Amino acid sequence: MPSASQRARTVQASPIRKLKPLADQAKRAGKRVYHLNIGQPDIPTPTEYFEGIRHAAQGVLAYSPSQGLDETLDALSEYYRTFEISLGREELLVTAGGSEAITFALLAITDVGDQILVPEPFYTNYNSYAQITGIHIVPVETRAQDGFRLPDKKSIEAKITPKTKAILFCNPGNPTGVVYTRAELELLAEIARRHNFYLISDEVYREFTYDDAQAISVLQLPDLDDRAILVDSISKRFSACGARLGVIASKNASVMESALKFAQARLSPPTLEQYGLIYLLKSSHYQNFVREMIAEFARRRDLVYAELQQMPGVLCPKPQGAFYTIAKLPVAEAERFTRWLLTDFSLDNETVMLAPAAEFYATPGKGRDEVRIAYVLNVDALKRAMKILREGLQVYTTEKRA
Amino acid sequence: MPSASQRARTVQASPIRKLKPLADQAKRAGKRVYHLNIGQPDIPTPTEYFEGIRHAAQGVLAYSPSQGLDETLDALSEYYRTFEISLGREELLVTAGGSEAITFALLAITDVGDQILVPEPFYTNYNSYAQITGIHIVPVETRAQDGFRLPDKKSIEAKITPKTKAILFCNPGNPTGVVYTRAELELLAEIARRHNFYLISDEVYREFTYDDAQAISVLQLPDLDDRAILVDSISKRFSACGARLGVIASKNASVMESALKFAQARLSPPTLEQYGLIYLLKSSHYQNFVREMIAEFARRRDLVYAELQQMPGVLCPKPQGAFYTIAKLPVAEAERFTRWLLTDFSLDNETVMLAPAAEFYATPGKGRDEVRIAYVLNVDALKRAMKILREGLQVYTTEKRA
Repeated sequence: MPSASQRARTVQASPIRKLKPLADQAKRAGKRVYHLNIGQPDIPTPTEYFEGIRHAAQGVLAYSPSQGLDETLDALSEYYRTFEISLGREELLVTAGGSEAITFALLAITDVGDQILVPEPFYTNYNSYAQITGIHIVPVETRAQDGFRLPDKKSIEAKITPKTKAILFCNPGNPTGVVYTRAELELLAEIARRHNFYLISDEVYREFTYDDAQAISVLQLPDLDDRAILVDSISKRFSACGARLGVIASKNASVMESALKFAQARLSPPTLEQYGLIYLLKSSHYQNFVREMIAEFARRRDLVYAELQQMPGVLCPKPQGAFYTIAKLPVAEAERFTRWLLTDFSLDNETVMLAPAAEFYATPGKGRDEVRIAYVLNVDALKRAMKILREGLQVYTTEKRA
Repeated sequence: MPSASQRARTVQASPIRKLKPLADQAKRAGKRVYHLNIGQPDIPTPTEYFEGIRHAAQGVLAYSPSQGLDETLDALSEYYRTFEISLGREELLVTAGGSEAITFALLAITDVGDQILVPEPFYTNYNSYAQITGIHIVPVETRAQDGFRLPDKKSIEAKITPKTKAILFCNPGNPTGVVYTRAELELLAEIARRHNFYLISDEVYREFTYDDAQAISVLQLPDLDDRAILVDSISKRFSACGARLGVIASKNASVMESALKFAQARLSPPTLEQYGLIYLLKSSHYQNFVREMIAEFARRRDLVYAELQQMPGVLCPKPQGAFYTIAKLPVAEAERFTRWLLTDFSLDNETVMLAPAAEFYATPGKGRDEVRIAYVLNVDALKRAMKILREGLQVYTTEKRA
């Protein structure tokens, strides 16, 4: 039998999903499992999205242009204008989700063997995009006890080599919940200018900010047009994860032309889904939808943060954005604790599923006592899940101490 | 300004689309252009597909599993069963179109610098998938004057090196219209067994066969389970190019596990589109739809072939499958002729757009006097287009001779 490729052997199986068999087993045994481990929101997709699809669902379901339908590009241009970001059609490319946007951005600016800097902990699938494109992620350390803020310029520059082609970051941040300040973004911009490379900003959680935090786009930074690449997705802001619609946006014509060549190879992003998005973005309702959804997530964030603060030994910086938080737990091995919650623990026949945070670090050994919590359930379910977590932690730490 | 990547500079812009500006110019000047240059069929998508989408268009538009919905896998399994191909869920993976299927298949079995053999002329986007995955295409020559049949074993084996990981082929063939015989497929299978590598069979045109030709699937060949990888798409057979739904199927568990890891990185194929496909495949109508569509394409094939046979100096093997044919023209440079048709020629203010076939060859200089004709228009439009082509050829060859 011929063998699988080396890259297939080394690319990670989805780590967020690797404990799924244990959750399935728990459910088969009759336990209810609260899923705080994945970023699939429970909010119904706006009806306008589905209406747009219904209107277009007829005739020949043809390829759209590789760049996206002109109407999609125009609707997106209007959307970005509400953030005072001005983008012409040629500065936009519609992709099959944020995943494809990041892959095309990397293909456009890196060659095999190149490096990119990524603040860690980071969204684990970045590892797979690096593997697919044959490049290496060099982590820039951030820590729970510092609120996952960026380190100083010297620490970041120490990671730069002649092979560094970009800094890739997620803002607002998955998995940290951090929203970068203008000073932090200016620091990254200054480094990109000085070392003549790109900033790739993953802004799929743009609207998910709380309290006074505000997400600043990489395209809003001054004197950075040649170096700024925005990758985006409608998955979270319109609760349309299954649509597979994302965006690459840049003022750098060479980047956009390069990305388009790779986009032409896959012919077209999904066509009907684009009609859903166009209809939604043209409706007056969509900004209300987002506002109400964010208000709901703010309530969830408040609840989860307050509950975590009351758990003995738990350290959790206050998340300002996205819908995740990383919590440092009073356990040596968060993955073992996560497994134990599924296999050995229940409270009134219910338990919770968390994502062990070590998966979000590139540096071996980091984050082993941390978990990522996605607050994607309603407030009542979250209350219950937090109670189960608190009780679970108490039982687990008592048992282990005994 | 930082530079684009080397791979972005060398990957081709879509060659089939590169003459588009000339066609646009012709249209602006009031000319009607018959598009024989692209494989976008004009047949309305089955209504059942849209009905399935309408039923599912509500609630939370969530990610589907990375492998595809269980219902999609089961519906596909039933579909393949009608070809006496037995596939369990774990032997199927739903992709975003045939493009993603090929890319994942290559990622699963090759590493950077590896080679694959591909009979040329071949679908040009194979070049881009090779570029994206960092591998090299080694062409195996086939010729119009031999009806694009495969060469003998020795000629194929002469191309094999220690870096050869697969033979990738399209059957029925785009752009040749060739349907491989059992003997040809057995030859490829024998080579794959002997040299311990894979066969990747692109079967997106499975149903598109004419006269007595029948497409044999790579999964129907004996003693090849470990080496056979089927890549597929619903784009052509259900006239649903914009759906972006494809398939990888293999009995080799390691290949499927490897492909799934890359699929997990992009999270999910489009969800609603899968509900369209499930509904369509469950309907009793879909086989009739395909049968009627093929009958229509057979009429188109007959017409185009008969017309081409009557044009002086044109050589065109009779296409047995897909909806393309390659014609050798009595011109030195088919690309120049194609441009001339758009810029300098018209018949009653109408002209045709062809795809210069040199784009479909990897070997420099090959196919320069050939074009690919996609017979994706109705019979009346094709009649008219063939008349324009005949007149155009006559004027062009007379002018050039003068």
